[in-house]
Amino acid sequence: MNAVETAARLARERLAPRAAGYDRDAQNPLESWRDLWRAGLLGAGIPRAHGGLGLDMPTYVGVVKALAGGCASTAMTLHMHSTVMRFIDALGTEAQKRRYFPEVVTHGRLFGSWGSEPAVSLSRTLLMETAIRADDDGWVIDGVKHFCTMALGASYYMVWCAVDGGTDMGKALLQALVPADASGMATDGKWDTLGMRGTYSPSVTFTGVRVPVDAALGQPGSSIQVGVIESFALGYAAVYVGIAEAALAFAVDFLRKRVVKPENVSVAQDPTVQRHVGELAVRLDAARLVLEQSAAAWDAADIVERGLLANRAKYLASEVGLEVTSRVIQTVGGRGAYREFPAERAFRDMRTATLMPPTNDRMLETIGKSALGLTEAMFRVSS
Amino acid sequence: MNAVETAARLARERLAPRAAGYDRDAQNPLESWRDLWRAGLLGAGIPRAHGGLGLDMPTYVGVVKALAGGCASTAMTLHMHSTVMRFIDALGTEAQKRRYFPEVVTHGRLFGSWGSEPAVSLSRTLLMETAIRADDDGWVIDGVKHFCTMALGASYYMVWCAVDGGTDMGKALLQALVPADASGMATDGKWDTLGMRGTYSPSVTFTGVRVPVDAALGQPGSSIQVGVIESFALGYAAVYVGIAEAALAFAVDFLRKRVVKPENVSVAQDPTVQRHVGELAVRLDAARLVLEQSAAAWDAADIVERGLLANRAKYLASEVGLEVTSRVIQTVGGRGAYREFPAERAFRDMRTATLMPPTNDRMLETIGKSALGLTEAMFRVSS
Amino acid sequence: MNAVETAARLARERLAPRAAGYDRDAQNPLESWRDLWRAGLLGAGIPRAHGGLGLDMPTYVGVVKALAGGCASTAMTLHMHSTVMRFIDALGTEAQKRRYFPEVVTHGRLFGSWGSEPAVSLSRTLLMETAIRADDDGWVIDGVKHFCTMALGASYYMVWCAVDGGTDMGKALLQALVPADASGMATDGKWDTLGMRGTYSPSVTFTGVRVPVDAALGQPGSSIQVGVIESFALGYAAVYVGIAEAALAFAVDFLRKRVVKPENVSVAQDPTVQRHVGELAVRLDAARLVLEQSAAAWDAADIVERGLLANRAKYLASEVGLEVTSRVIQTVGGRGAYREFPAERAFRDMRTATLMPPTNDRMLETIGKSALGLTEAMFRVSS
Amino acid sequence: MNAVETAARLARERLAPRAAGYDRDAQNPLESWRDLWRAGLLGAGIPRAHGGLGLDMPTYVGVVKALAGGCASTAMTLHMHSTVMRFIDALGTEAQKRRYFPEVVTHGRLFGSWGSEPAVSLSRTLLMETAIRADDDGWVIDGVKHFCTMALGASYYMVWCAVDGGTDMGKALLQALVPADASGMATDGKWDTLGMRGTYSPSVTFTGVRVPVDAALGQPGSSIQVGVIESFALGYAAVYVGIAEAALAFAVDFLRKRVVKPENVSVAQDPTVQRHVGELAVRLDAARLVLEQSAAAWDAADIVERGLLANRAKYLASEVGLEVTSRVIQTVGGRGAYREFPAERAFRDMRTATLMPPTNDRMLETIGKSALGLTEAMFRVSS
Repeated sequence: MNAVETAARLARERLAPRAAGYDRDAQNPLESWRDLWRAGLLGAGIPRAHGGLGLDMPTYVGVVKALAGGCASTAMTLHMHSTVMRFIDALGTEAQKRRYFPEVVTHGRLFGSWGSEPAVSLSRTLLMETAIRADDDGWVIDGVKHFCTMALGASYYMVWCAVDGGTDMGKALLQALVPADASGMATDGKWDTLGMRGTYSPSVTFTGVRVPVDAALGQPGSSIQVGVIESFALGYAAVYVGIAEAALAFAVDFLRKRVVKPENVSVAQDPTVQRHVGELAVRLDAARLVLEQSAAAWDAADIVERGLLANRAKYLASEVGLEVTSRVIQTVGGRGAYREFPAERAFRDMRTATLMPPTNDRMLETIGKSALGLTEAMFRVSS
Repeated sequence: MNAVETAARLARERLAPRAAGYDRDAQNPLESWRDLWRAGLLGAGIPRAHGGLGLDMPTYVGVVKALAGGCASTAMTLHMHSTVMRFIDALGTEAQKRRYFPEVVTHGRLFGSWGSEPAVSLSRTLLMETAIRADDDGWVIDGVKHFCTMALGASYYMVWCAVDGGTDMGKALLQALVPADASGMATDGKWDTLGMRGTYSPSVTFTGVRVPVDAALGQPGSSIQVGVIESFALGYAAVYVGIAEAALAFAVDFLRKRVVKPENVSVAQDPTVQRHVGELAVRLDAARLVLEQSAAAWDAADIVERGLLANRAKYLASEVGLEVTSRVIQTVGGRGAYREFPAERAFRDMRTATLMPPTNDRMLETIGKSALGLTEAMFRVSS
Repeated sequence: MNAVETAARLARERLAPRAAGYDRDAQNPLESWRDLWRAGLLGAGIPRAHGGLGLDMPTYVGVVKALAGGCASTAMTLHMHSTVMRFIDALGTEAQKRRYFPEVVTHGRLFGSWGSEPAVSLSRTLLMETAIRADDDGWVIDGVKHFCTMALGASYYMVWCAVDGGTDMGKALLQALVPADASGMATDGKWDTLGMRGTYSPSVTFTGVRVPVDAALGQPGSSIQVGVIESFALGYAAVYVGIAEAALAFAVDFLRKRVVKPENVSVAQDPTVQRHVGELAVRLDAARLVLEQSAAAWDAADIVERGLLANRAKYLASEVGLEVTSRVIQTVGGRGAYREFPAERAFRDMRTATLMPPTNDRMLETIGKSALGLTEAMFRVSS
Repeated sequence: MNAVETAARLARERLAPRAAGYDRDAQNPLESWRDLWRAGLLGAGIPRAHGGLGLDMPTYVGVVKALAGGCASTAMTLHMHSTVMRFIDALGTEAQKRRYFPEVVTHGRLFGSWGSEPAVSLSRTLLMETAIRADDDGWVIDGVKHFCTMALGASYYMVWCAVDGGTDMGKALLQALVPADASGMATDGKWDTLGMRGTYSPSVTFTGVRVPVDAALGQPGSSIQVGVIESFALGYAAVYVGIAEAALAFAVDFLRKRVVKPENVSVAQDPTVQRHVGELAVRLDAARLVLEQSAAAWDAADIVERGLLANRAKYLASEVGLEVTSRVIQTVGGRGAYREFPAERAFRDMRTATLMPPTNDRMLETIGKSALGLTEAMFRVSS
């Protein structure tokens, strides 16, 4: 069984049954993470040489998409974690790789990535106010992070900082791997949202948090030059497509079984219903093809191209995902809103997940610039 | 202070603060109903001669819209109740009016309306399988109703039945006012949905439920000939517009106050944000104008025209309401999904409320028939 | 017969039969202008005291809409002409009014308005490069105008200039009424476009064109302070709605008469066709209501409010007009593209007419600013 | 140079310069057909064994798309012709192939396909009223055909008939190859349409037209069982994408060169313009990927799958093509409507070309049926 099939089976058998519970409680999907670990999927983004699966991008995207069909929060957190693994692989020293990768592969530890901040919008300009300063024997971090996904659940957090509080991220951006038990971190513990509730993401304040010298990845500014930051958005697209596919599959099943009077035939026989389903199916098909083609072109693409590949996939998946999950409820009718069915969670998860940067406006701007022969990176640094 | 101003004040001061609680608990908005009673609004659809406010349709629609801005479930249930009052006024005998209206005006009692059934789609053909049969000293009702809004909360339920189980609603449809404490009614108590959670609506089974002769309103088939059934949809449109107006007002307030770095200006200064808000504002404006104009034309309209007036208002309000509540979250960004803000409830309420019949497809079909010179009533009876 | 009824009759009996010819030849609708004159409609924007009809805005908008249903180019040019009349009424001296108004009322002369220029976009910033300079005995004009509607057809052109070539239109904008036979005007005569071909609009170069002192209207900068410039867009909206209404009426007639085999019934009986027609009808209904309500609120509105009233009407009419004319062709099918039917001209006219400033983006920006509490005039001057 | 490159060069150097003329005159693109012949492209659908190029579907679709970028009418007629070649290859006897293919390859002759009729809609039910009857020494054809593309230009027409006027196309449909000079054919010569004017398509009446026995292809009913009829729609999709790509390329070039005051920068620098271009680019990208993937899956697909592959490609290309060509004009602004630029012809061609069957409603219905597990062929026969 290949990785995508494994993910699909896990999604169906293990993730889906637990998804409603994580959603209700707004808690980290701890049990589902354990299943991912046992199946080796926590190492999806870790090279084989370091004990991981070293998945190529098409397979990786297929895995994330399949998982999202069962539990979008589990898929999203795996993608966050896996992207940290890619950063370590791209920026880390051999010593760092030998230290962190086994924690994942052997011990099932997870890594979060905390970038958002209260006073900035990543879709406008990449800017970090959380400062990291060199001290005698390491680094000291001060600042506030929002949307700290996997808080209280992961073992390390890759925290996006600015060296000495600099404002030109091209020179100052530096990510540090902070252990979950570091002193000086305090969370407000607040996380009560519309959807993606299993991606527990409260705010965290850093007050003089000290980490050793080798907690930092690469050099200041280097992390936006390695073609990894762009992969966040590609994975988001995979999550959206996975949610939408599962929602449409639910609708198809429901509509086939639902029989109404006085005709006493399945509503699937109604041409109006067929056209609604047809429109959702064909648009979703297009978004999936674009996602797959973007993943297939990933390895050969440079940084600017990766930005475009990810943007187009995320934009289309976002638009179609919102439409599919909304219209699935409309087409199913009143029962589509019942919590006992998965459609309403899909609807809430999609509307929440599509808020992750970059915004549609920012993506279209970048795509348009490229079409107009004006080159720009996916994220704009404030230089 | 006129009725609309009263409703707006109540919505702001009493309904809005309680809305999150009713939503969380999925319970009848009992306290808010009491406020409506004290303000006289339970008598919105009762003639002045019987102690009600006897609101004209434009004022009534304004009241429902204003209430929905504070708590959509409270507004929706008031509308259900008020429509039962209109049925009693149109179909009831003088004795029935003298009996039921004071229960509302003087005692603050509420009336629900139960039409939905598990095996029928009202958007296709108006058909009731719940049977009502004449007995020596009254009527006996047997059947199952779904989406029994205000169950366990109202004092009477107007139950839509077919005399002797007939299938031609043009001849068999008969509504009976069933007291909440009648024997033979059993509810499954299940109500856990995406939105409109304060419109507690479990399933109810009727097993030999006996009601007196004068519990029936009008004659078999008469209730679809009095131009009241059409007003359900007009009120739904008022609810949708009210939800959307409140959501947009929240977004405007949020965007004005939110300041981002490095520019350090309000995001309301961003032309992209302005265009999003502008598009939502102008579309909502159009839907509101159509709603108001439909209400203004109501009294002079015949049954077929009322169907069209209600359809066009509901269709436009439904489309724009879904778009506004979704894009308000998008424009506000990540915080738009926080449960501490009202936008996410607006989003859930809208997606749920717009599932009420007729469907968009059915409405467009009726509007199109009219434009094509083919006349048809809003609901199709299976004759 | 009131003015709107007169316009509707003229549109049906005189304008519509000639519309295809003006479209084919791309020439001024001279004969139709004559009919408008005979019916008094050239004086639609001239006060009664000066022999005009002095139409209030709702009636005026109704007239333009009705005319557009017969010939969009005739309606658009009447609107241009009428707006010049409004400028003369608002800015002109009593002597100017006594001089120019009788030329229209008594002699049937037309006035064009030339504002566009090759190097500016009115939707961005109101800026004129055509310079007007005071000379011993009058003014001298130099510059180039594009889209000079009614060239070679009208008797006067209100030319938008900048005094001494100033760039702050708030201080420099000055409009001069230039007789068609003034020396120094040369046109390239080029006008071959997709639609609105009867609004003959070549480029015109002004080389030392001399006009007397009293050819100027008002003071520099005054013309943007009188609430007339905003009415351009309101009239455009009337043209769009008129085009769309006529196109939909054609489709309804066609679909009712078209019978297909093997069913041998009118395609109007097809529920899919009904839904398409229904959707177009309801959206057009909304745009028309907004147009009418904007016109009704015009007189009492200040300049900023007029900008909003016009923007919302134009935005909605533009969106729905493009959709209606495109989908009318789709719904009618292959024959909808035949030039012998009016649908294809409606489609071309709409796509061309909606290019008139402000753009949708600019309109949404202005509407959004207002919704966000930020006030701005319809046109931005480069100060 | 491969076939797609050859087509792209021809489109740019030979077809594009003539396209405006064929459009103006509404005449067959005779000179461009000759160029296609010289380049071997008239044999695109003829097997190599018979002297053709025997293009696989991905290459063929690439050729049609490239040609459409230069002249949509030329591309569309080549596609009609090529599909007749596919029918001959699938249904013809060896003798028929040896007779007809050299006429194309060696002599540059073209073959049209005439299916439309005045009283039927192919999108509803495949039905032919044109009757073909066996006579002593051949066949006799009587009936009327509409939209007879390439009339007066091609050498043979594949005429869709019903044997003995039968109404079940599954048994009666028979196509006959009628020479252009056969007696009894009369055309009304009328062809004056919105767009695709170079696909000269008047009506033709058949009165006792006699053709030899071997003019018929295959057996009655066999032509819908060979997976060729589905390829019509795939080629239409290629035409739409080709038109849209060329229109967008024009816009990009125009917007890069257009500089406006007072900013004096290219409008391509405007973020709003970038977002419009970005949205069109990303949607067109998706439609193209789906088209290419449908073509790639063609050979291995059965008849039902081919219907789906073609439907999804045509549906998406139709939607995006209409949007791209309309918004290209909007984004370019007033000059976008000038006939000297190609955008307005692209807009007219697209709105006309997308009227070819099946309609969007029919396509969505078929796609939806498939998604719902209900199988149906692309065209419905009236059995």
